[in-house]
Amino acid sequence: MKDLYVKNLPVGIFDSGVGGLTVFKEIRRFLPKENLIYVGDLARVPYGSKSPGLVRKFSLQIASFLNSLGIKSLVVACNTSSATSLELLKRRFSFPVIGVIEPSVEEALKEGRRIGIIATPTTIKSGAYQKAILKKAPEAEVIAFPAPLLVPLVEEGWIEDPITLQVLKRYLSPFKEKGVDTLILGCTHYPLLRDMISKEMGEEVRLVDSATSTAYRLKQLLSRLGLEGGEGREEFFLTDDPERFHNLAVLFLGRKITNVKVIDLEEENER
Amino acid sequence: MKDLYVKNLPVGIFDSGVGGLTVFKEIRRFLPKENLIYVGDLARVPYGSKSPGLVRKFSLQIASFLNSLGIKSLVVACNTSSATSLELLKRRFSFPVIGVIEPSVEEALKEGRRIGIIATPTTIKSGAYQKAILKKAPEAEVIAFPAPLLVPLVEEGWIEDPITLQVLKRYLSPFKEKGVDTLILGCTHYPLLRDMISKEMGEEVRLVDSATSTAYRLKQLLSRLGLEGGEGREEFFLTDDPERFHNLAVLFLGRKITNVKVIDLEEENER
Repeated sequence: MKDLYVKNLPVGIFDSGVGGLTVFKEIRRFLPKENLIYVGDLARVPYGSKSPGLVRKFSLQIASFLNSLGIKSLVVACNTSSATSLELLKRRFSFPVIGVIEPSVEEALKEGRRIGIIATPTTIKSGAYQKAILKKAPEAEVIAFPAPLLVPLVEEGWIEDPITLQVLKRYLSPFKEKGVDTLILGCTHYPLLRDMISKEMGEEVRLVDSATSTAYRLKQLLSRLGLEGGEGREEFFLTDDPERFHNLAVLFLGRKITNVKVIDLEEENER
Repeated sequence: MKDLYVKNLPVGIFDSGVGGLTVFKEIRRFLPKENLIYVGDLARVPYGSKSPGLVRKFSLQIASFLNSLGIKSLVVACNTSSATSLELLKRRFSFPVIGVIEPSVEEALKEGRRIGIIATPTTIKSGAYQKAILKKAPEAEVIAFPAPLLVPLVEEGWIEDPITLQVLKRYLSPFKEKGVDTLILGCTHYPLLRDMISKEMGEEVRLVDSATSTAYRLKQLLSRLGLEGGEGREEFFLTDDPERFHNLAVLFLGRKITNVKVIDLEEENER
């Protein structure tokens, strides 16, 4: 009976905002039956330009909230959180915790040797991608640059837009100059710009995003632990009013979202 | 003695982040002797795309913190906070509270009749500028549009940049089409783009920003209440690590900042 109870617990997924829905979408594709709970920290988004210590605090608050609801596994669907907080969350909780960095790095190293990483300033500064690559492939060449404007551009809905193309040209030029063979899209917003990035980098450059590889990793993990279960339920918790979330959710998830609740993590933590 | 004590209390100034430093700069210019305390909520910046209720909560937390330190007056140097929270703060505290909207509107109406407002989405949606204008000048024509990308562009340091010019051209075109005679820069980040905006709008369009008019309003208020005083002290409280703040502060204030402390407003509120 205990086993069935645990199997039917949801998988927790969180992000600073809407970006993690690209990961949610892939998880749903790979695991149609699992119960999923998503937390988007719209009250404090974005994380990518905030300090590592603060991102760790926010991540811990969210994971504690999900822990209080009861989850069987946690997916940190935010690159900045994964880069700064994954080890802390793994130490702190008994359920398995998956970040988005390891799966991307593994995917990138399948063929890549000269690997570019484009991500938020805090993710790049953390060095988490760089370290993960060099740990597995000390001979790899790593080129990392931040791209702070891509998140606001995607959230403004300026996709397939000439201005966004100009911004991409500027951010991508150092990667082109260095001749990367693989480019990791190190932020969950960037898959929405994938076509434009691919056109700009050229077809010979492999683009790796964390959504698919992380979802696949979760599927493997649940299978290995015999934890598959659920009835396909979905629940969304947001830390700010979801009006804007609903429009963006359609952009990221390709469909409307129901069953949304607004929570106050500061109050949750005082309980 | 009581009087002297109150006169020497600092003026509190707050913003969601660094933008309010444009107001701080003008206050320092008009009132070189006043003691000033600045709070920048870098942990939760930006406010401009968050819900009005959440911005009210954040604004109240900051004002309560400043109240606990002791201030003789409060300047809400953030348009989004002023648009959503000014009435609440005025009701809640006994010290006089000044926002950035009223002073701008008064300045705009000196000559303007067809008035444009460019600001963050939450400021525009609040209707605060529109209402303030129509209350004073029911015959005025008001044209308001949001410009969510300008804050990230300024914070990326892309000022006098061809990409920023393209973004401005897009955001400013409805104001040009409607033939505004005055444009209110309804966000404390926008004065840094003033020259570009002026070039794009044409010299005949008057640009109004809140920094100067708000600082002048504060000077009048302190004089009227006989509250002038101080020794020119400055103190800065930030809700996140100031590394990024220091670089941006030079951009906004034109000089380096010292005497910076990092605070946790959630913990402050529990005391």
